[in-house]
This record gives sequence, C-alpha cells and structure tokens, in this order.
Amino acid sequence: MILGFNDYRQQGEALARALQREFALVELHRFPDGESKLTLPTELPTEVILCRSLDQPNHKLIELLLAAQTARQHGVKHLSLVAPYLCYMRQDIAFHPGEAVSQQIIGEFLAGLFDKVVTVDPHLHRIERLDQAIPEREAIALPSASVMGAFLAAHTQQPLLLGPDEESEQWVRAIAEPAGLDWAVAKKQRFGDRQVQVALPEREYARHQVILVDDMISTGNTLINVSQQLRRQGAKTIHCLVTHALFGEPVSHALHQAGIENIWSSDSVPHPSNAVGLAGLIASAFRS
Amino acid sequence: MILGFNDYRQQGEALARALQREFALVELHRFPDGESKLTLPTELPTEVILCRSLDQPNHKLIELLLAAQTARQHGVKHLSLVAPYLCYMRQDIAFHPGEAVSQQIIGEFLAGLFDKVVTVDPHLHRIERLDQAIPEREAIALPSASVMGAFLAAHTQQPLLLGPDEESEQWVRAIAEPAGLDWAVAKKQRFGDRQVQVALPEREYARHQVILVDDMISTGNTLINVSQQLRRQGAKTIHCLVTHALFGEPVSHALHQAGIENIWSSDSVPHPSNAVGLAGLIASAFRS
Repeated sequence: MILGFNDYRQQGEALARALQREFALVELHRFPDGESKLTLPTELPTEVILCRSLDQPNHKLIELLLAAQTARQHGVKHLSLVAPYLCYMRQDIAFHPGEAVSQQIIGEFLAGLFDKVVTVDPHLHRIERLDQAIPEREAIALPSASVMGAFLAAHTQQPLLLGPDEESEQWVRAIAEPAGLDWAVAKKQRFGDRQVQVALPEREYARHQVILVDDMISTGNTLINVSQQLRRQGAKTIHCLVTHALFGEPVSHALHQAGIENIWSSDSVPHPSNAVGLAGLIASAFRS
Repeated sequence: MILGFNDYRQQGEALARALQREFALVELHRFPDGESKLTLPTELPTEVILCRSLDQPNHKLIELLLAAQTARQHGVKHLSLVAPYLCYMRQDIAFHPGEAVSQQIIGEFLAGLFDKVVTVDPHLHRIERLDQAIPEREAIALPSASVMGAFLAAHTQQPLLLGPDEESEQWVRAIAEPAGLDWAVAKKQRFGDRQVQVALPEREYARHQVILVDDMISTGNTLINVSQQLRRQGAKTIHCLVTHALFGEPVSHALHQAGIENIWSSDSVPHPSNAVGLAGLIASAFRS
C-alpha cells in the first residue's frame, strides 16, 4: 500500500498506479495551536510505502514521525519512505563552529523511522552515497537524468545544455552524455564577499536552444545572471530544466523577465512548472 | 548552562538568574526553503538545560532535535528540557480508529533526546503522571497553583475563583484551597452535537471579584459564555487567570468584549497577557 498526503497526492497516486498497489490517504488536520492530528487507515498491510516530498520540511518531519510510529503500532513490518525531494542534505558539515550538522541528524532521525528511504537527485557534497547520511538502512538515490534526458529529446531541437556553475556539472553531464547532447558549464567568479559574476564558456549560443540545467533553484540569482549574458551573446531561446522546484512565484517571474522562456521541473516538489513525472523512475526502486 | 532561544529568551534568562547559571543563546536561522540552521556555543559544560516552550510546536520540535543531538556531539552528558508549555499532551488516545496517539509518540521522541523534562501544568487526562508519557526519564510536572495563588492574593480582593467546566476543577481547587479562597465550578451541558451551554452554580456573584480560572485558553468560547452569564447575574468585576495563553489577539478582544477586565497568564507561552513569572518555580526542579 502507498500512503499519501494531500499535499503530494497526485504523485502518490501515480506511484501506486505504476506499482499496481492500493493508494490510501493519511488524513491530516492542523489545529490552531499548531499541533497536527493524523488519521491512518485502520487496516494496513505489513508492507507500506509513505510517499511525501520534504520541501518546507519541519511540519512534515513531525508528521512523518507520527505517521510512521502509528503505522508500526498497527502492525506494519516494512516501512519505506519515498521523499523525491529530501530535505536537510546541504548542511553536511559545520561551516562555522557550533553549527548543527543537520544532514547527519535528520538522516539518523529518518533511519530510526524507516527501513528504506528513496529519493531523487539528493544534493550531496562531501559524502558520495546516501546511506552515509541515512545509516544502516536501504537508502536509494535515484538519478533523474534518464527521464530528464527523455523529456528534452521530446521537447527541444538542437539543445545545448548549460550548467550555471561548476557544482551543476554532475547533473548536466549525466543528462547530456547518454543522450548524445551538447553541453557546457559556466564558471562562477567571486569578487569580494558578495559579488558573483558568471563567466560563460565560448560557444555559438545563437545556433542552439540553450537549456539551463541544475538540480535545484532557490533564489534564481545565478540563472538570471547567466540568462542575461546569454541574451547579450545572441541566444534566441533559453529554457530551464530543474529537478527540484523550490522557488516561489516572484522567482519564476524574475526568471521569465531575464529571458527564460519555459521552466520545466520534475514533480519532486509540487509546482506550476512541473513537467516531468517521476513515478515510473521511483517505481523501479521497488521492483527487485 | 541554560541554552535559550530568541522566542523564549526573557524566560530563559530569568531561569538562569534564578539558578545562578550562565545563559547562552542558540542562534537560529530559517532559510526560505523552510529548513532551520542552528548554531550552539562552541564550549558547553557537561550539564545543560535547553529552555524553550512548545506552543506552535512542529518547527520547535525539529529544532530541539537538532540542538539536542549537537549538544551531545559537543560532549554534553546530562541534557534537560524546560518546556513550560508541553505540546501534544491532549491526544492521549485514538478518539477515532487509526488516529495517531501523539502524546505517546512525542513523549517517546522527547525521552530519546533528554535525560530530564520539566514542564508546568501539563494537560493530562487519562494518565496521571508525566513519566507515563515520557518513559524512563525524570519527568517533572510542576503545578503552577502556588505562584498563581500568590499572584491573586496580591492583586485581588475577596476573589471567587470559578472554573468554567468540570475539567477545570483540578486547577481551581489547587489554587483556591491552600490560599483559603472561595471557589466554584460551572457545568457544561451539551445540546445536540455542537451547542454548549454552561450552567453556573448559585452564588452571590455581585459580592465578589470573580476570577475565571483554567489551565489553557484556545478559542475562549466557554469563557465568553460564562462571562456573559456572570454579567447577567450582577457580577461587577470579572478577571481571568490562565496558565497557558495559547490564544491570539482576536480571542483577547472577544474576551474583553464579553466583560472580562484583565486576563492574567503565566509566562509559559510568550503573550501580552503574561503577568506571572515561572522562573522561581521551575528553578526548584533543579535544586536537590
């Protein structure tokens, strides 16, 4: 059985269809005092998948705790979490003394609740494998590259995939190389503490549909800078492909203002830009 | 050392003064994506008290997890939680099949993080002792009655303490009896599913300052009903004394409109009505 939440219901139902399993909803009520009340179906099988993405995570993490422990009390023996966007993966060291290393703490919290955790394109830096963050559990990080590449193949012509900074290279390369697409990566240059300028590699941008590619967008500032430069260098169409759409309407607006025609995101985070469904990919983690 | 948070700083500092211990702040930053970043002091003693009240609790519970685990990593051996308002104590059974019994789940979550938990007037129904909710830990439920009674003795004349319903009897009696004050309790009567009417006991309300007493106010509906009836029975001054002020400005306004002159609350939840400091009472739980 797939147990879903209303804020991620479509994706949970799509996963249930892909796996040919039953879907049921966790009823959620938030009281005015900020407490959450959860009601699970009364009849649960021994194997259950909780499906909820973890953007804006704190409420959701407490609700996962309540749901997981209640499922255990009702006899669930094998409990999986499908969280296509996994929170708290970026704080993987104390950047300043005394900082909480939240990747490790939240990872252990999830390891305490679930037998298996499945996510898509987690933002890992200083560790290589997800099971280093979620210890002693089956921890699966699915790459979205194949479904993203298939989407581009169907929706673009002569695309040039461009990563906005060195960190994005892993995502760009993974999509472009198997599909035989052109790709390049820009370089971030810092001047002083705050000023950032992006240097574009030399390409004939006017001849391509330029696709900016990254794993997540939050402020969008780098993409805006890159897009403005691309325009000056004659690029005619610029689109943007991103796994995790963590940004709100003002950022969407600024990106379009900067000359980005379409923003396409996976449905890891519910968002108006969602264009690429992940259900088939995620289902593969549950077929042995 | 007392480790406090900005949203409960004054109370944390007052506790530190009462215990003659150092106070330090946990720096808290919330990112636009909803994640919390915490920074603790780099030098921590082996015994630390985290002080934060747990109204609007979900963010705060995740931040307690991050703070507690980070403190442990920095060598803290004995970690206490002072949460004068303790969340999730009301859902102590599944009122409907499948409901999460959050009192038990959150209690075990806190037991996993802290050696000792101290709170004030927790709203317990079907269990008698706090350590039934927070198992295998030192779990101390301090009664606010003595400081509440001392406050009333100093600020009222010929008070009659009135509980708005049967559930409030325990709080009213605990304040009134040791102080030798008059008290009574109203009865709630339900008509159909939603209609509630409160029946006042017969008293000469015109001869007293009537003090409505309860452990918490959330919607305020019962108090409004009681206050309107008291007015009709000639009560001249009505005040309200409450431990946990969980209500917002619209409820304050409605209570004053219904004829309640002053609302006095303990500082368990930061609120404009705070009149009774709990630091001295809480300090007593740390002096052996």
